[in-house]
Amino acid sequence: MPASRARGSLLAIGGHEERRGEMRILEHFVQRCGGGAARLVVLSTASPTPQERSAEYETAFRELGAGHVSAFHQTRRAEAADPGLLRALERADGAFLTGGNQLKLVTLLGGTIAEAKLRQCHHAGLHLAGTSAGASALSAVMIARGRARSSARLSSVRMTPGLGILPRIIVDQHFRERDRFGRLLAAVLCNPSMLGLGLDEDTAFELGADDRIRVIGSGTLTVVDGTEIEATSLGTIPEDAPAAFAGMRLHVLTEGWGYDLASGAVERPAVEVQRPAALV
Amino acid sequence: MPASRARGSLLAIGGHEERRGEMRILEHFVQRCGGGAARLVVLSTASPTPQERSAEYETAFRELGAGHVSAFHQTRRAEAADPGLLRALERADGAFLTGGNQLKLVTLLGGTIAEAKLRQCHHAGLHLAGTSAGASALSAVMIARGRARSSARLSSVRMTPGLGILPRIIVDQHFRERDRFGRLLAAVLCNPSMLGLGLDEDTAFELGADDRIRVIGSGTLTVVDGTEIEATSLGTIPEDAPAAFAGMRLHVLTEGWGYDLASGAVERPAVEVQRPAALV
Repeated sequence: MPASRARGSLLAIGGHEERRGEMRILEHFVQRCGGGAARLVVLSTASPTPQERSAEYETAFRELGAGHVSAFHQTRRAEAADPGLLRALERADGAFLTGGNQLKLVTLLGGTIAEAKLRQCHHAGLHLAGTSAGASALSAVMIARGRARSSARLSSVRMTPGLGILPRIIVDQHFRERDRFGRLLAAVLCNPSMLGLGLDEDTAFELGADDRIRVIGSGTLTVVDGTEIEATSLGTIPEDAPAAFAGMRLHVLTEGWGYDLASGAVERPAVEVQRPAALV
Repeated sequence: MPASRARGSLLAIGGHEERRGEMRILEHFVQRCGGGAARLVVLSTASPTPQERSAEYETAFRELGAGHVSAFHQTRRAEAADPGLLRALERADGAFLTGGNQLKLVTLLGGTIAEAKLRQCHHAGLHLAGTSAGASALSAVMIARGRARSSARLSSVRMTPGLGILPRIIVDQHFRERDRFGRLLAAVLCNPSMLGLGLDEDTAFELGADDRIRVIGSGTLTVVDGTEIEATSLGTIPEDAPAAFAGMRLHVLTEGWGYDLASGAVERPAVEVQRPAALV
């Protein structure tokens, strides 16, 4: 764990980030954690094939020059008390939550010693990354499941308690690819104090200790801010009916753009990035 | 607002508390807020008939001797910026959230100035009470809707982001009367770090600044503690299938019993209360 007492950074990835070749997002994470000196822990709890998934990331992080990588493939709650895992988390510079099924991840990890350790180490400086299910699970209220290609209907999104590392943010992933805008809108309408962040594949946002997020990758980050909505019908209509609302603020950000969580201000990059980006 | 800088107490009520006659639970709230000196604010945002509901509580609190009662019946988000409401909250000793529809309450109040003020005043000493929908909405992850008489199925409970005043607790109400045990179990299984608290009608728990809760009223409080479960199938089975699990801790408490949120210990009353209680 870094000597710094500040909270570690958080990297939420929309899934399908490059795991061979350039690997811009994973490389960013390795560099953030110290490059050649980085000690990383991979947690493949969410995955239906945890062993294969751990091995894939172990290989990728080694190729990117990480100094030390250990992989844990938890399949039972009791394994979250494994002293080897707890020790590895204490010493790590970064922890990485793989994709899979976020409800599997939280039912296996929620309320365990390893979860408490992860939170505690993150507050003391551990950098934390999650992709796909691992990104969704970072929210306090997470999207567990939902419908694609839907209007904003209450029935289009199933939320459950997440790991709570991102308290007033709801993360969605595979966002443009699986047409999940409706369900993220519905999630924010349920309580307009929540900020909705939808990540495309091969796209990430990094949240620093300064409460600012910055976008990395080839796709977009969709920001849904409901704090100024004037009205919504969602609370009083049938679950399957599309909800009406007025006054939602919407931003779509690409690599280099940022967002200040405290003020709600969008931050343009100092130098415009010259890549073909935006799918939206 | 009291001079004290400690967080105010929280009173969550399972609905249908007496509003005429003895009114033990409402009387407890008035006394907690200072009795004859108490300044109370009633918020009937959740109610489908906000004006009638506000008037009912105004009458009850006056009968119980509260010094000053003001009632607000919010029907639009913009009304949450009403300077009269904000000033009343600042001066109040207690605020009371009525029943109705918790999703209506949160879609109208979430992310508004009044919500921020409520949270801020509560942290500075404002006592807060909510009944039925007003109790559910106190959770960070609230049960918005669900099925009665169900096994613990993911599909039996719809959770959405609540007001977040009770961060790691999920409150359910009308608990025994509407047979809601299955849906509360499902909510806790989704993330075993959550504590499930099911309140019968005319029953309340009060949470003090010492993180202890105490039961008041004629029914029971059901406590569902998942932190020691060994396994659950909920994360990997179809939404409509009943979930299996092993090792849930369960307590059912009646008037005078308590529970320490930090240690998870049940606290027996100093003197056993002599009332016919427990419906379970």
